[in-house]
Amino acid sequence: MASSSEGSGDALLPDFPRGPLQAYRARASFSWKELALFLEGEDMLRLKKTIFSALEDDPLFARPGGGDLPMEKYRELNFLRCRRVFEHDLLRVEDMLQSPLKVWALVNCLGMYDWSLAAKFFLNVLVFGSAIYNSGSERHFKYIPKIFSMEIFGCFALTELSHGTNTKAIRTTAHYDPTTEEFIIHSPDFEAAKFWVGNMGKTATHAVVFAQLHTPGGGCHGLHAFVVQIRDPKTLLPMPGVMVGDIGKKLGQNGLDNGFAMFHQVRIPRQDLLNRAGDVTPEGTYVTPFKQWRLLPYLAAAYALDHFSKSLFLDMVELQQGRLGKDASAGQAELGREIHALASASKPLASWTAQRGIQECREACGGHGYLAMNRLGHLRDDNDPNCTYEGDNNVLLQQTSNYLLSLLARRAQGGAHCKSRLKTVDFLEAYPDILGQRFEVPSLEDCLDSSVPLAAYEWLVCYLLRESDQKLNQEKRSGSNDFEARNNCQVYYCRSLALAFLELTVVRRFHEHTHQPSVPPPLRAVLRRLSALYGLWSLSQHTALLYRGGYFSGEQAGKMIETAILDLCSQLKDDAVALVDVIAPPDFVLDSPIGRADGELYKNLWGTVLQEGKALERASWWPQFSANKPVIGSSKSKL
Amino acid sequence: MASSSEGSGDALLPDFPRGPLQAYRARASFSWKELALFLEGEDMLRLKKTIFSALEDDPLFARPGGGDLPMEKYRELNFLRCRRVFEHDLLRVEDMLQSPLKVWALVNCLGMYDWSLAAKFFLNVLVFGSAIYNSGSERHFKYIPKIFSMEIFGCFALTELSHGTNTKAIRTTAHYDPTTEEFIIHSPDFEAAKFWVGNMGKTATHAVVFAQLHTPGGGCHGLHAFVVQIRDPKTLLPMPGVMVGDIGKKLGQNGLDNGFAMFHQVRIPRQDLLNRAGDVTPEGTYVTPFKQWRLLPYLAAAYALDHFSKSLFLDMVELQQGRLGKDASAGQAELGREIHALASASKPLASWTAQRGIQECREACGGHGYLAMNRLGHLRDDNDPNCTYEGDNNVLLQQTSNYLLSLLARRAQGGAHCKSRLKTVDFLEAYPDILGQRFEVPSLEDCLDSSVPLAAYEWLVCYLLRESDQKLNQEKRSGSNDFEARNNCQVYYCRSLALAFLELTVVRRFHEHTHQPSVPPPLRAVLRRLSALYGLWSLSQHTALLYRGGYFSGEQAGKMIETAILDLCSQLKDDAVALVDVIAPPDFVLDSPIGRADGELYKNLWGTVLQEGKALERASWWPQFSANKPVIGSSKSKL
Repeated sequence: MASSSEGSGDALLPDFPRGPLQAYRARASFSWKELALFLEGEDMLRLKKTIFSALEDDPLFARPGGGDLPMEKYRELNFLRCRRVFEHDLLRVEDMLQSPLKVWALVNCLGMYDWSLAAKFFLNVLVFGSAIYNSGSERHFKYIPKIFSMEIFGCFALTELSHGTNTKAIRTTAHYDPTTEEFIIHSPDFEAAKFWVGNMGKTATHAVVFAQLHTPGGGCHGLHAFVVQIRDPKTLLPMPGVMVGDIGKKLGQNGLDNGFAMFHQVRIPRQDLLNRAGDVTPEGTYVTPFKQWRLLPYLAAAYALDHFSKSLFLDMVELQQGRLGKDASAGQAELGREIHALASASKPLASWTAQRGIQECREACGGHGYLAMNRLGHLRDDNDPNCTYEGDNNVLLQQTSNYLLSLLARRAQGGAHCKSRLKTVDFLEAYPDILGQRFEVPSLEDCLDSSVPLAAYEWLVCYLLRESDQKLNQEKRSGSNDFEARNNCQVYYCRSLALAFLELTVVRRFHEHTHQPSVPPPLRAVLRRLSALYGLWSLSQHTALLYRGGYFSGEQAGKMIETAILDLCSQLKDDAVALVDVIAPPDFVLDSPIGRADGELYKNLWGTVLQEGKALERASWWPQFSANKPVIGSSKSKL
Repeated sequence: MASSSEGSGDALLPDFPRGPLQAYRARASFSWKELALFLEGEDMLRLKKTIFSALEDDPLFARPGGGDLPMEKYRELNFLRCRRVFEHDLLRVEDMLQSPLKVWALVNCLGMYDWSLAAKFFLNVLVFGSAIYNSGSERHFKYIPKIFSMEIFGCFALTELSHGTNTKAIRTTAHYDPTTEEFIIHSPDFEAAKFWVGNMGKTATHAVVFAQLHTPGGGCHGLHAFVVQIRDPKTLLPMPGVMVGDIGKKLGQNGLDNGFAMFHQVRIPRQDLLNRAGDVTPEGTYVTPFKQWRLLPYLAAAYALDHFSKSLFLDMVELQQGRLGKDASAGQAELGREIHALASASKPLASWTAQRGIQECREACGGHGYLAMNRLGHLRDDNDPNCTYEGDNNVLLQQTSNYLLSLLARRAQGGAHCKSRLKTVDFLEAYPDILGQRFEVPSLEDCLDSSVPLAAYEWLVCYLLRESDQKLNQEKRSGSNDFEARNNCQVYYCRSLALAFLELTVVRRFHEHTHQPSVPPPLRAVLRRLSALYGLWSLSQHTALLYRGGYFSGEQAGKMIETAILDLCSQLKDDAVALVDVIAPPDFVLDSPIGRADGELYKNLWGTVLQEGKALERASWWPQFSANKPVIGSSKSKL
C-alpha cells in the first residue's frame, strides 16, 4: 500500500518549498507523506485538497491585505463566501450521508480558512437544518430544499440575555390558542430576549426558537422548539411583532452576525411546533454569579501583587538614589542583584496571573465577556505583551534562579552569609534546617493564616534550590556545557524555583503588611483572609512538589489546603463586591457595560447594544440575499 | 484617624450609585472607604481622583462609541492625548522626586485608561529620559528639558528583528572614526533592523540605540548605548541614512506606534555615546527555536485530540442513525448518555488545550507572535468562544461527572454491569481492584509508552469517583440540598473527575490507534512517542492527586514522569517539523508570514511589514507634533 500511495501521493502531497526548514525536515525519522496518507486516507486528502484549492483559486476568498475589514464589510463578505460555498458544491448531500467524515473535513477546512464562515454555513445547514430534519415530521421537510437553494436562511435561538446555558430558566413563552390553532410566541421583557444567536443579526429569515409551552388550563409543559419566521426573505425586513438586530462586535469571529430578538405576541401555526427537536441538554445547572471560587483567588492576587509591586518600586527608587549618589559600595551592587532577581521573576508572575485572571473573568461572564463592548478582550490584549517585552518570561526566570544558585554556591564555599538588604534571601541561612521541616498543621483553623503557606514556601524554595543544584551538577558531569546544562534544568527545576521564590516574597510582604499593628482593627480580618487565600492558592499549584519532596504526606495535607481555600473563598464571598469597589477605577475609565458600579449589567448591556447605530438596521447588502440565489455547482466548473 | 478621614473620605470617595449590587455591598464585613484610605492614604487617593477627573472632564479623552478607531486615527488620538497629559501638568518633576509613588500612580491611572497612552508617555519621559539622565554626564542633560517641551520625542531601541531579548546577539554596530571623532551607526542587514521599538513607528525624533562598539584595531567592546537623531523635529521626516517605519497592527495597544529602523552608515558625534546607560540586562540566554519543550506536548495533543474528535464524530453518526431508524431500545438510550458524557467534557478539554497552546505559541514567538499579521491573535480569538457556547465549560463538566456518579450508584445497588457500547466505562467493572493498584514501573524505558499513563488514569478516575461520591454524601449529610451539594463538590472533585475521565478516553483511543497492527512499520515509533507524550504530559497535571491518593509514593515516581516527558520531547525534536507538515493547512489558509512552509520567517515578516502601504509614510498628523507644542499646565485651570 505504501508504494502505490507514494506514487499518487506526489501529486496529492507536493513537496514543500526549499528554505531554512529543509535541514530540520531532513532529520525526521519518518516520511510525512506516508503519515498523512495513513492518518487521513487518499480520499480524504483529495477532498481537502479540492476544498482548499477551490478557496485559493477563487478571488472572492483572497485574503484582504492591510489590516482588518470594517465589521459591516466583513459580514457582507462572509455572507457572499457562504453563498459561494453552495456554488462550489464542495460536498453533495448523498456524499455526506455515505461518508460522514467528509462533513467533518468540510467543516474543518472552512474553519481553518475562517471560523466565521464555517459557523455561518453550518449553523444554517447543519444546526438549523438538523433541528428541522430531526423533528421527524414530514410536514417540516419542506424547509430542507429551501435551505440549499437559500430561499430561507436559518438560525438556532436558545440562549437569552440574562441566562445562557441554563435551559430551565428560559423565559420566552409559547401559549397555545385552541380557537385559532396557533402558538403565541412572546418575550416577557428584555432580559428574556434571545441573544447571541449566530446568523440572527443580519441574515436569518427563520429561527428555531425555544420557548416554555403553555396550554390553557394545562400549565407549563417545559421547553419546546418552534419554527418562527423572523424576516421577510424578499426584503430581509423583520416580520410584524419581531424586533431583531445585531449584538455588535465580538473579540473574534466577526464575520458571523450574532443577533438578538424579542417577540411581541407573534402567532405561528400549530404545525410549527417541532415535536422532536431533541438535542437540548435536559439539565442545566445554574452557577450563581457570586459563587466565584473561580475569581476570588484572583481578587486576592490583585491585592497581594499590588502591594508587592509598590514595595518593589520603592526598592528600585532606593537603588536609583544610591546610583545617582555614586554609591559604588559592595552593598549597593548586592542590592542591585537582589532587585534584579526579584524584578526578573515578578514580571512573569504578574503578567501570567493577569492573563489567567482576565481569561477566567472572560469565561465566567460567558458570552457577554466575549462581546467587544465589555472590553475584557481589550484588557487581555493590552496585558498580553507583558509576557514578552523586556525579555520572554521564561528567559527572565533564569535570571532569578541563577541568582539563587549563586548564593547557594557561595554558601557552600563557606564564605558569606545569606543576608541581603531587602531580607528576601535571609531565610537561606537556615537552609538545612528548613529542608528538614514537614507540614504540621493541627487543624483546619490553623491553616487559615498566611503563616502556613509562608513556612511551606520556605521549604519549597530550599527544596527546589537543592534539586536545581543537583540537576545542574548532574548535567555538567554528563558532559553538557554550562549553557546546555542551564537549559536542561529550566523546565522542571529552575523555572519553578524562580517562581516559588518570588511567590514566597510576595506572600511574605503581604503577610507582614496585613499583620502589622497599624492595620485598623475593622480591616484586620478581611486583609488577613486575603493574605491567606493568596498564599494558599498560589501554594496549591505546587502540591505535587510538596508531596514529592516529602513536605506533605498522607491524604490529609492536600485536602486541608483545598478545604482552607474553599473556606476562605466562602468567608470572603460577602466582602467581594466591597473589595472590588476599593480598587476599581471609575466607570469612565473601565468603560464596560457589564462592569459598571451600579451593577445593572443586563440593562447596561441592552442599552449599549441598542445604542450602536446599526443594531436594528437592515444589512446594506440585503439584495445579495434576496435577489441573488446560489446555483449549486455553478462555480465548480471553474476549477 | 479613622474618624477624621471618614469625614474627608466622603468627598474623596463618594458612595456608589444604587442598584442591584446594593444588597451585596451591604453584606461586607468592613467599610470599603476605610480600606481604601488605609491602603492608599489620602494624598494618593486625591492624586488619583485628580487624574481620573482630568481625563473624564476633557473631551479629548471621551471614549469613542461605535467600535474601534482605524489604526492611523487611534495613533493620532493617542499622540494628542499624550501631549495633553503634559498640558494638564498632572505631576511636577519635583513631586516625582519627592514622592516616587506618585509616578507609580500616574502610570497606573493612565494605563487603566489606556495602556497605549501610558506606554507612549513613559517610554518618552521615563525610559528614554532616564537612559539619558542616568548616563550621568552633564553633556546629555540638555535633552531633558526638550523632552518636557516636546521639542524632541524619544524611544529606546534595543531589540532587533531576528533576536529580541538576547542582548549578546545584537548586531547593530557603532564603529569609532578617530579622524572625525564620530561613531558610525550601521545595520548590517534587515535581520539586524531595530524592531518593536515603541514610539519609533511615527513619532520619535531621537532614539537611544544599542550597538556593538568597535574601535580601530581594538576589536569589539560589547554593547553600548548611543543617542541617535532619527527624524527632523520640524518635518518628522527621516534623517539621512535612516530608514524608519511602523511595524503595523498588533493584537493590542494599537495607540502606540511600534516601529523599526535600519541605519546606513549614520554618523553621530563622539559625545552621543551614553557612557553609563546602565539598565540592559547583562546576560541574555538564547533559547533555540527547536528546543521547544513548550510546544511539543501541544503538537502531541493536536494529534491525540484530532483522532479522538473524529472517532467521537463517528459515534455520533451511529447514534443519529439509530434515532432516525426510530431505535427506542435501552441500548440506544444508554449510547446517548455515554456520548453526551464524552461530548460534554471534550469541548472543555479541547478548547482549553487549544487556548493554552495558542498562547504558548504566541509567547514562544515573542513579540512577533503579537503582531496582528501573524494571526496568532486571530486563532486565539476565534477559538475563545468555544470555552463558552453550548454551555460554560465548568457547567458542561458537571454533565460528565453526573454520568459517572450515576454509574457508581447503579453499581452500588448491585444491579447493572458497567458495560457500555463504546466501552469507555467498562474498566469500572474492576473498580475496587484498580483502586488498590500502585505505580510500579521498573525503569525509565518502560515509562516511555502510553500504557503507563493509561493505567495511571484508570486509577485516577476511580479515585476521583470515590472521592467525589464521598464528598457528595458528606455534603448531603451536612444538610446541603442536591444542587448545593453538587456545586460544592465541583471545584476539586467532580471537575477533575470529568476531565480525567475524558483524558483517559482520549489516551486510550490514541493508544489503541497507534498500537494497532495496521500501522505501517516506519510510522510506529513516531506515533507511539506522540501517544506516550500526550498521555504522560496530561497525566503530569494530576501529579498532586496521584501522590495524595497514594498511587505515587517517593520522589522517584514524579521524577520519572518528568524525565520521561523530557526524553520524549527530545526524541521527537527532529520529527517536529515533519509532524507539523502533516497537519498544517496550506500557506494560503494559514496566512501567517512567520508560519509559511518555506520557513523564511524573518524575510517573510520583513516583506509583509514593508508591503503595508503606510509603513514608511510620515504620519498624516505630523504638524500636531512639529507645530503645536504643549504649554505645560495650560489645561490645568480648566479643572
